[in-house]
Amino acid sequence: MSLELTAVTAPLAEAAARLVRLLPARSLHASPATVLLSADAGGLTLAASDAELSVRVHASATVHTDGAVVVARRAFADTVAALDAPEVRLAVEGSRLAIRTGGGRFALPCLDAATHPSPAGEPPLAGTVSGAALGVGTAVAGAASRDGALPIFTGVRVRAEGDRLAFVATDRYRMAAASIPWQPGPMAGGAWTERRADEVGARREGRQRLSGPGARVSGASADQHGPGPAGLVPGALFAEVCRQASRADEVRVYASGDRFGLAWQGCTVVAASLAGPFPDRQLDALLDVRAECVVELGADELAAAVQRALPYAGPHGRVTLRASDGVLQVSGRDPQSGESEEAVKASVRGDHLSAHYQARFVLDALRPFAGGPVTVSVQEAMRATAFTAPESALTYLVVPMRA
Amino acid sequence: MSLELTAVTAPLAEAAARLVRLLPARSLHASPATVLLSADAGGLTLAASDAELSVRVHASATVHTDGAVVVARRAFADTVAALDAPEVRLAVEGSRLAIRTGGGRFALPCLDAATHPSPAGEPPLAGTVSGAALGVGTAVAGAASRDGALPIFTGVRVRAEGDRLAFVATDRYRMAAASIPWQPGPMAGGAWTERRADEVGARREGRQRLSGPGARVSGASADQHGPGPAGLVPGALFAEVCRQASRADEVRVYASGDRFGLAWQGCTVVAASLAGPFPDRQLDALLDVRAECVVELGADELAAAVQRALPYAGPHGRVTLRASDGVLQVSGRDPQSGESEEAVKASVRGDHLSAHYQARFVLDALRPFAGGPVTVSVQEAMRATAFTAPESALTYLVVPMRA
Repeated sequence: MSLELTAVTAPLAEAAARLVRLLPARSLHASPATVLLSADAGGLTLAASDAELSVRVHASATVHTDGAVVVARRAFADTVAALDAPEVRLAVEGSRLAIRTGGGRFALPCLDAATHPSPAGEPPLAGTVSGAALGVGTAVAGAASRDGALPIFTGVRVRAEGDRLAFVATDRYRMAAASIPWQPGPMAGGAWTERRADEVGARREGRQRLSGPGARVSGASADQHGPGPAGLVPGALFAEVCRQASRADEVRVYASGDRFGLAWQGCTVVAASLAGPFPDRQLDALLDVRAECVVELGADELAAAVQRALPYAGPHGRVTLRASDGVLQVSGRDPQSGESEEAVKASVRGDHLSAHYQARFVLDALRPFAGGPVTVSVQEAMRATAFTAPESALTYLVVPMRA
Repeated sequence: MSLELTAVTAPLAEAAARLVRLLPARSLHASPATVLLSADAGGLTLAASDAELSVRVHASATVHTDGAVVVARRAFADTVAALDAPEVRLAVEGSRLAIRTGGGRFALPCLDAATHPSPAGEPPLAGTVSGAALGVGTAVAGAASRDGALPIFTGVRVRAEGDRLAFVATDRYRMAAASIPWQPGPMAGGAWTERRADEVGARREGRQRLSGPGARVSGASADQHGPGPAGLVPGALFAEVCRQASRADEVRVYASGDRFGLAWQGCTVVAASLAGPFPDRQLDALLDVRAECVVELGADELAAAVQRALPYAGPHGRVTLRASDGVLQVSGRDPQSGESEEAVKASVRGDHLSAHYQARFVLDALRPFAGGPVTVSVQEAMRATAFTAPESALTYLVVPMRA
């Protein structure tokens, strides 16, 4: 192993931090928590993997000696993050990767490159989206389940539909969905689309939302009515990818049968799609909101009122929203805790409905709309309540609690 | 029960928050987590207790109806903290204390006043200190143990000595001590001093630090050589008291045989002293530092270097400090993690000693000196290393680790 280079500290630290954040803090798969540093005329590439996830990040560097070395990735990231020197020199010295600044030398043991998983190449390009638009994916991923007992609900469903890319996540108590502009890539006119067209042709009647031209992100998953042109991305990974990519102008999306990839600003993530049938049709039906009562108000004002009702929300954290003339009443009631009632100014159209909710789900639903207006669409009976906003691609559904 | 008043929201919320922070979040004693609100011409008093701790906080209010009511204290504090209205009205309405603003009503059940512990009166005044000087007590309390297995080490030892009030806390691996100016109160010339003088007379030879005139905070505890004129205050309580009182001009200290009290800015805390012999003599001896090597440098620069050594500090988090000409070398070394070495500019006097330390203890020791210089006094063999600063009342000792 050899390697010698000089780099500006801040972007190197940023690259290492991105890599660490995209990989699980604790691996379930006993993957070695290593990073492969590869230096050549193009600069430095940091690559790491965990199970079926593979991450590569590029960093600018002045490379004196081409080469590669494997070291512990968190120790490397922590070391470069803590440096206060503006420039840093990396060099393999015997069995160590030395990280040198004017006053300090930090020497990480070089690890066996054979135990480092080889980085996966990305599948074919499927299309592109804007990073700013992709940012909404973090809010969608927030509605995914953290409970591994039902793995499909820990994922974000990603589907390309014509010139839109749609995301859906749900833990079965709330659901978030968004659709952003999608520029199909070269694959859209190739074998991939043909295969998709066959599927859609066979199922046109049953699944209106899947009609029209477009590419798909992955075909590994399927709803319970048969295989569908979509992928299921682990929620925590998708949240972090969307957070990082939201600063990029353009994000490239790669897809094949059972793998997908995203690339932005020198960073490439390739992962396996979660397996399992996803109930697309049922979830699509939930998005067909028929509001009996539409309430428009400030998201922050409503969130503050729900926060104030929390001490009165009882052991199940239940708050009641009740629409009346020009106000939304937010109330809590519990034999032990007492009662609260507060009027929040709102524009109210339609019937004056009321419903009970788990307070934290309402707060989660309002968070992506913070600082702006939110439209609360209440449906009859126990159908979900929708939180939307004119300027947002996001629809957040919260299922009411029974009285 | 009755009561009706109007108050400015912010100071009322501040008073309730102070009260809640001074009491344990979870009581070990099954004390009801209630607050007694008492209103009269003087304003509103909030009083609450837990086991042998009693807290009273005053808040300005325009009282319309004198009276008192008992409610759940965290729900009360959370409710007034979350209000966005500038004024609030409190009124007993039937079985509820109603907290009203323009748009909202928050109704807490009135609880049985008989189950609320009656607030303790404070013991006689022992003396006064300045709030700004008392602030150092929070740093001292940070060295107390969190491990209840040795209860005396969970406390901060407080002793009045002439015109100084001294604090010591230790978990046996590190120790913090400070001494601040002390103005003895009327008790200093009364029965208390006489009793104290008797005790000191009997033990003058053995305990030099206890000679000279002065009051004591409490006489409940004693070192292993007999009863001593001092108190032992629970560490978490002392940290919070010093944090809050550091903004006050003057803090009054009350003391009797086994209780102590502090009062500042409308807030009064009375508590029982922790029982048990405290090893005053041994700890005083540790403060007699005979440095072989004195290193002066910036606290932040040293803390940053220790942070950078952490990834190399191994499973026991061990760093080495080694003095040489004009620098303090900070290093870590571990077969798994690798090695680090960094030079931090310093003024070094005396022998060039080196010693190993638990990194987090060094970081804890440096935190109170953040933003300024620190003097590191290394003693020979395994004697503790002292961290001090010219402008600080604090001495923080860290015991080195064996090689």
